Amino acid sequence: MPEKSQRIVFFVSDGTGITVEMLGHSLLTQFEGIEFNQITIPFIDTVEKAHACVGRIDEVLHAGNARPVVFTTLVNEDVRNIIHKSNAFVLDFFERFLVPLESEFGVKSTHTIGRSHSAMDIKEYKDRIEAINFSLAHDDGVSAREFSKADVILVGVSRSGKTPTCLYLALQFGIKAANYPLIPEDLERMKLPVPIQAFRSRLYGLTIAPERLREIRQERRPDSQYATLENCRHEVTQAELLMRREGIRWLSSTTKSIEEIATTLVQDMKLERRTF
Amino acid sequence: MPEKSQRIVFFVSDGTGITVEMLGHSLLTQFEGIEFNQITIPFIDTVEKAHACVGRIDEVLHAGNARPVVFTTLVNEDVRNIIHKSNAFVLDFFERFLVPLESEFGVKSTHTIGRSHSAMDIKEYKDRIEAINFSLAHDDGVSAREFSKADVILVGVSRSGKTPTCLYLALQFGIKAANYPLIPEDLERMKLPVPIQAFRSRLYGLTIAPERLREIRQERRPDSQYATLENCRHEVTQAELLMRREGIRWLSSTTKSIEEIATTLVQDMKLERRTF
Repeated sequence: MPEKSQRIVFFVSDGTGITVEMLGHSLLTQFEGIEFNQITIPFIDTVEKAHACVGRIDEVLHAGNARPVVFTTLVNEDVRNIIHKSNAFVLDFFERFLVPLESEFGVKSTHTIGRSHSAMDIKEYKDRIEAINFSLAHDDGVSAREFSKADVILVGVSRSGKTPTCLYLALQFGIKAANYPLIPEDLERMKLPVPIQAFRSRLYGLTIAPERLREIRQERRPDSQYATLENCRHEVTQAELLMRREGIRWLSSTTKSIEEIATTLVQDMKLERRTF
Repeated sequence: MPEKSQRIVFFVSDGTGITVEMLGHSLLTQFEGIEFNQITIPFIDTVEKAHACVGRIDEVLHAGNARPVVFTTLVNEDVRNIIHKSNAFVLDFFERFLVPLESEFGVKSTHTIGRSHSAMDIKEYKDRIEAINFSLAHDDGVSAREFSKADVILVGVSRSGKTPTCLYLALQFGIKAANYPLIPEDLERMKLPVPIQAFRSRLYGLTIAPERLREIRQERRPDSQYATLENCRHEVTQAELLMRREGIRWLSSTTKSIEEIATTLVQDMKLERRTF
């Protein structure tokens, strides 16, 4: 195999850099055969910091590497102009899109720094923290106290992906997600556990391929009965049967990322997001 | 006050839509005086779904609203072309940036759908789940078993923002973050709690304005001694004194979002991220 070519990529932002690195990353995943060394430089919100940042970027070329690529979301024009003077290949998201949007909306943009991940919206912030606390308090069937306040209750066998999904729903979307495990006793009885029976319309199932479940459980509890392929197969078959009987929607988490599970669930359950 | 003008905005993606809505949202926050009604349409990965999507977009105009704005990240050209035929004002992130990147890299992009939030990278996925489990197991000083495996241990008074920050670090960056509360007894003794004494170089503090802390605690435990401004002031002053004495870096979470706290911490502690 030929050696992969390498490129150094900077994500430069006047805020956290989370937006710019996410967009930049999604563009870079479209290129194969290149190894990207990705560096995020957040909080570049003054002319001084911009100059220091350009120094760091220009070092790459001086050190004999290929021209670095720089993705930016910068609202301040002075800062932006300094970054553009670097020796890098600069792709400026705001420059390209703010001008057409200004003309579409017929108003000037405010050029306010760091708006998108700031804590400005107190209501949104509170909703989010509340959702996180709710998820933690209602993880793994720990408490059924406030299931009536849940936006969604995830069900599924142990290690099917319920907890990460709930936390993501809370952090990213401010959605109150509880989760309740389907344990072997429930599966033998072929009945929903009592605490969730009254909330059928809010239940959403996660299932998983037995082979994948086996891998995950094997890491958690090596060579246990719990982790055998036979047991995983049995639990998954029974859980799917139960969900089908009870008319619970579900998806398979086997090849899905946390983001894909969460987004699909929000769409399927028509949940309203509390944060953007 | 004049009534705000309204615009309907769609985020259309062939994947989760998380990238496009984040970038779109960060652009929209630059416009004041307009109320945006934001709708995400994920998983538009076939020509059929694209036609249905255009139907939904075009309804907006038919219903007498202003022309909708559509932000897209679509890698398939057929899908993209259909969306462009809608009556909306379409801003296409990939179209604008993939072509210049192709020419910079000297290779064609792969046009593979839904790459950026897929579960393709098994190693990254495992690191992330492991970090989430670690955070949950080491929340609020619950266990000090594996502090030696922590990338960072957050310290601070109760309700200073430690838990959401740890969860975010795990989910977003795959960083193993534990947290340990500084309780009144620690503050009276003016000494670090025993379980974290050996990990001084990995400690990072969160502090918070006493007035803000009071608000948060008041909601949690109304009219308790714990929530009085006097008590909050005392705890915060003592905690800051302790951190200063022990040479622990810290930041104030008072006006910061979870993203801003996490990003600043990663930068301050020079932590290596395990996911992108």
